[in-house]
Amino acid sequence: MVDHRMPAATIRDVARMAGVSATTVSRSLRGMSNVAIETRDRIDRAAADLGYRLPRLAGGVRLVALVARYPAQWFFAESIATIERTLRGSGHDLLIFGVDDAEGRRNMFDRLTENPVVAGVIVVATSFDEPERSALDALGVPVVVIGGYAPGLPRVGIDDANAARMATQHLLALGHRDIGVASFAPGDTVGQDTTSARLAGFQDAMQAAGVPVQSRWVLARESNIQGGVRCAEELLTLPRLPTGLVAMSDEMALGVLWTLRRAGVVVPGVMSIVGFDDNPMAAGCDLTTIHQPVTAQARHAAEQLLVMIDSGVREVVDFDLPVRLVVRGSTGPVAPRP
Amino acid sequence: MVDHRMPAATIRDVARMAGVSATTVSRSLRGMSNVAIETRDRIDRAAADLGYRLPRLAGGVRLVALVARYPAQWFFAESIATIERTLRGSGHDLLIFGVDDAEGRRNMFDRLTENPVVAGVIVVATSFDEPERSALDALGVPVVVIGGYAPGLPRVGIDDANAARMATQHLLALGHRDIGVASFAPGDTVGQDTTSARLAGFQDAMQAAGVPVQSRWVLARESNIQGGVRCAEELLTLPRLPTGLVAMSDEMALGVLWTLRRAGVVVPGVMSIVGFDDNPMAAGCDLTTIHQPVTAQARHAAEQLLVMIDSGVREVVDFDLPVRLVVRGSTGPVAPRP
Repeated sequence: MVDHRMPAATIRDVARMAGVSATTVSRSLRGMSNVAIETRDRIDRAAADLGYRLPRLAGGVRLVALVARYPAQWFFAESIATIERTLRGSGHDLLIFGVDDAEGRRNMFDRLTENPVVAGVIVVATSFDEPERSALDALGVPVVVIGGYAPGLPRVGIDDANAARMATQHLLALGHRDIGVASFAPGDTVGQDTTSARLAGFQDAMQAAGVPVQSRWVLARESNIQGGVRCAEELLTLPRLPTGLVAMSDEMALGVLWTLRRAGVVVPGVMSIVGFDDNPMAAGCDLTTIHQPVTAQARHAAEQLLVMIDSGVREVVDFDLPVRLVVRGSTGPVAPRP
Repeated sequence: MVDHRMPAATIRDVARMAGVSATTVSRSLRGMSNVAIETRDRIDRAAADLGYRLPRLAGGVRLVALVARYPAQWFFAESIATIERTLRGSGHDLLIFGVDDAEGRRNMFDRLTENPVVAGVIVVATSFDEPERSALDALGVPVVVIGGYAPGLPRVGIDDANAARMATQHLLALGHRDIGVASFAPGDTVGQDTTSARLAGFQDAMQAAGVPVQSRWVLARESNIQGGVRCAEELLTLPRLPTGLVAMSDEMALGVLWTLRRAGVVVPGVMSIVGFDDNPMAAGCDLTTIHQPVTAQARHAAEQLLVMIDSGVREVVDFDLPVRLVVRGSTGPVAPRP
């Protein structure tokens, strides 16, 4: 039996027929500038042929979209909760898009491109490539970034390089010279520029102290507990462990710490570990770490976005909130080599 | 200077003028049944006087609203991430409402009452009182509950009483008789029926073993790490500690464990602790716990909601997913009293 129902045309069908991108279709149908007359005509014809209309909403429903690489991880979950709370009373409700894989990214851009009541976007610790960044810009709504870097977009964050420098200097001051890094993997990064900035801070501190960086101790894995476990497993296969380790998240640091202790490696006696974030686990597990104010970052970002939505002004603010080193029991003086 | 701009009328203004509830205004303006002709006329007049129109949306934007008591806590954050992923491709985007205080609850009901494109609601581990439940029903959209109980609504969860019984029986089998509970506080519960069911399971197991429950060891605090810390602080003021403790979340269990160890109380030597959830911290911290499948619950709930939205059928499914005891290093045989 043949199914005679036609699925409704999507913006992608129109784009395909008109030979343009979906964002161009969106810009054109919204009447935005920067679309050539000839292209606009072609898009209008394709949309008419396919019976496609951009969804139009009237009334008071306005949304803010939050884009998060890993919505369930601590930094993201805290940001979501804070932003939801900050938006209350503003007339904007919060949409969530997880973008931890290609399908999630594509879904997010498709949905935002078609959704006419998204008044602004908050990007939490997620990097975009060039085409994605163009698609984001093409939405024509204010965007604010937390926990990452995106040239030309307003941003609220921390000084990642300086924070990593502080963590490394703490280990150096304790006499450590053999220092490794548990870094975010390039393919799995919560923000590639964040990763680069933290690595640069680590390298700066090492260089300033005249201590060489050993590349075999610079590992890159997922940003979660499992990523830390895998870093520790990798370290344990090496002929010699570093005596100190800077991890780019508390989850990674604790994954390392738990795995090492299970393998009989004393922390901090044999290896000192510094985390990054100061999440509630860090205090409980006595982890030395870099405290970053996630709630303040999220609240500032949401407030900044609301200002931009209300005023129509695309102010490119860029500010860092302070971090601090919290010294606990996972770091100590370097032990003499046997 | 006097500001002559009139703020736009809200559904609450119409309700006040017509002398009815906001949900009745919503039902009436949507043309739903169960509104008396006379009331409907009064509402129409009030709406016209105030220039109020229920927001109407056309096109493909459809939303699922997720209501979560604590969006940042593990169970909620995992549910949010899974439900967002499950909804991809369904044509529904995910709205988040945190309802950890009265303002959040009121905001959620106001927004959902006014929002015409919410096609369904998922309630994650959150209890409602009678008026709130009526407001939820009045939305006229399918609702599915995870991690809680709501008579007459479809529900996906675990058998909480049985899970708490398993945790208690584990301690009883290890010879413990002095067993306490770190329970969710009534005013802060993630779901009052969940708390009651778990307490009932604990009491059942104790009664079946002929062991009396000591009310001084049954403590109720927030469901997070801080709540566990406060339980431990309370226990430490008592003349005698229990030898075993069942905590209603891993966060609470770890808050207890870390605080006791800091106070020099050996776990499990002096006190054995069983958690609840099996979150990633539990494995890392070697916590014996009840494993519950949060991802499966969230996925089933989202799929069930989509079926109800698509079919229009309000099936009241109610099913429990299996839990299991995971024995780790935080529990051991009872030590003889000195």
